[in-house]
Amino acid sequence: MSCETVALDDAAKQIVIIDQTKLPEETRMLRLSTIDEFYTAIYLLQVRGAPAIGVFAAFAAYLCACGIKADDYEGFITEFDKCITYINSSRPTAVNLSWALRRMRDTAAAHSDEAVDGIIDALREEALLIRREDEEACRAIGENALTLLRPGFGLLTHCNAGSLATSRYGTATAAMYLGHERGYDFHIYCDETRPLLQGARLTAYELANAGMDVTLQCDNMAGALMASGKIDAVLVGCDRVAANGDTANKIGTSVVAVLAKHYNIPFYVCGPMSTIDSSIACGADIPIEQRKPEEVTDMWYTHPMAPKGIKVFNPAFDVTDHSLITAIITEKGIFYPPYSL
Amino acid sequence: MSCETVALDDAAKQIVIIDQTKLPEETRMLRLSTIDEFYTAIYLLQVRGAPAIGVFAAFAAYLCACGIKADDYEGFITEFDKCITYINSSRPTAVNLSWALRRMRDTAAAHSDEAVDGIIDALREEALLIRREDEEACRAIGENALTLLRPGFGLLTHCNAGSLATSRYGTATAAMYLGHERGYDFHIYCDETRPLLQGARLTAYELANAGMDVTLQCDNMAGALMASGKIDAVLVGCDRVAANGDTANKIGTSVVAVLAKHYNIPFYVCGPMSTIDSSIACGADIPIEQRKPEEVTDMWYTHPMAPKGIKVFNPAFDVTDHSLITAIITEKGIFYPPYSL
Repeated sequence: MSCETVALDDAAKQIVIIDQTKLPEETRMLRLSTIDEFYTAIYLLQVRGAPAIGVFAAFAAYLCACGIKADDYEGFITEFDKCITYINSSRPTAVNLSWALRRMRDTAAAHSDEAVDGIIDALREEALLIRREDEEACRAIGENALTLLRPGFGLLTHCNAGSLATSRYGTATAAMYLGHERGYDFHIYCDETRPLLQGARLTAYELANAGMDVTLQCDNMAGALMASGKIDAVLVGCDRVAANGDTANKIGTSVVAVLAKHYNIPFYVCGPMSTIDSSIACGADIPIEQRKPEEVTDMWYTHPMAPKGIKVFNPAFDVTDHSLITAIITEKGIFYPPYSL
Repeated sequence: MSCETVALDDAAKQIVIIDQTKLPEETRMLRLSTIDEFYTAIYLLQVRGAPAIGVFAAFAAYLCACGIKADDYEGFITEFDKCITYINSSRPTAVNLSWALRRMRDTAAAHSDEAVDGIIDALREEALLIRREDEEACRAIGENALTLLRPGFGLLTHCNAGSLATSRYGTATAAMYLGHERGYDFHIYCDETRPLLQGARLTAYELANAGMDVTLQCDNMAGALMASGKIDAVLVGCDRVAANGDTANKIGTSVVAVLAKHYNIPFYVCGPMSTIDSSIACGADIPIEQRKPEEVTDMWYTHPMAPKGIKVFNPAFDVTDHSLITAIITEKGIFYPPYSL
């Protein structure tokens, strides 16, 4: 991408993001400065992707801190906790949101003996560090994933775990970017990823922009693609990984995993260590966000595409059982079953 | 449905259909009388569903015959063959199209010693018989399928193998209609069925209209639904069944079948005997229609939903391997593996 997915304009006290709901038709930048704007940007998916949400939340917490009028730590942390709790309630599934906010909270606490200005300086540094770490993690994930792939591979991905979901490179796409730089000639197949079409609007867009060979298909065509022998590996991102390897990711990920197992194709989950939530034993304990019926029935459409008032099942994520995952690729290395994370 | 899916207005020499591309927003009736209108109605999916295409093709052949100016059988059959060949080229996968046209051709040949008017009378009777048989077959399929289901079952279906795809009752939906009449209280889950959304626009619409408990989901949510225990059986239609049981049906059907196997849920294919093509040994020999990229990238949308010029994989059907099919339910009975059809 020519512009950063999530940038901090410290002078203006604003977070600058690409409005991902407008892509690919329009590259509209948003400048956000209030806590309600931060909350809404996450809820409406103007910023999305577990790592990008983490970075965004860290910047948001820092900017909220800048606006707190307090004379001492006690006064500061009372207000700061309110901000963190509110931002944290914007979406439930991606653990990076609460993980980044907790890091910000811990940083404030570690500087509790300093003046409020000093705490705020520390928070800015921590937020920038979270972003830098994310960028480095993505690159390392890419290098690790690339050891499992060969030139000419057909690679299928679901949703967008690309540069638009992170600071740079993406997670599932990191090996695609690195491989592309090194002449691997991958053939990339993007699931469009209903209902919000992140695969069509974001992944196909960013990978085609980068000059890769990209094909788009509807989610229900992944089976025919695999049966045809065109897919050598599946790479997906993750929103939260439980200790046993069960992985919450965009709705439909578990379908791709079941298909990959059936067609004997390796299925790799890619994500930074921050996405692993060792406090959760298995996927059944991961909260799954349910979203509005209109995302399925009306959003994007010129005409009503379903009968009025029809009941809709619209979970934003599903859980892929660890038994379907060939390996989990992080910046610290590749984990294989049996998983104990 | 309050109106017939495919009706013959013999006085006006027209076929009357509901334009299925306009549902559910608008119930627009089309009156078609030329061979180009017949061809286009099939190609554009204004009429669709394997059995309905068969009935439509029979009516179309009859009306084409009415327009032929010929003094004898030789003159007649030369023109009639041209019409049949043209109509038959509108879509390749559903065998009912060529099956119905062959029945019409055979009927003409069986009356070759009659005057042209007599041949045309015989063709009208044959076309009406094909429609009547389809209606009876659907009811018998429903009765047979119902023996495999219990009250309160959660039933998942893909695409539209409903009354809109047949003369009445549908194939995959026949047991739902009959069960509903008998108080079975099924919970029906409809895959929206990208790219053309027949599940959302047609199946959810007709079953909700009939008063059933219907929930709509995106195709990629079927895995989460099955994992949640809500689905007790899958019922789908078919466009062509090979002798070994391999079944071509709407793209994504094979995905549902793989999922059903993974989650240990029975997967039933429903269709009339006319959909079985014993001349084809296995699914690899079934021609699969590829359709335009715009169906995936632009159709229905207010905004471009994918990057301009992106490559698209858009097969209209896929083949479900016989090993994934619990049973094939026809009007003549239920076939179980190993299939020898």
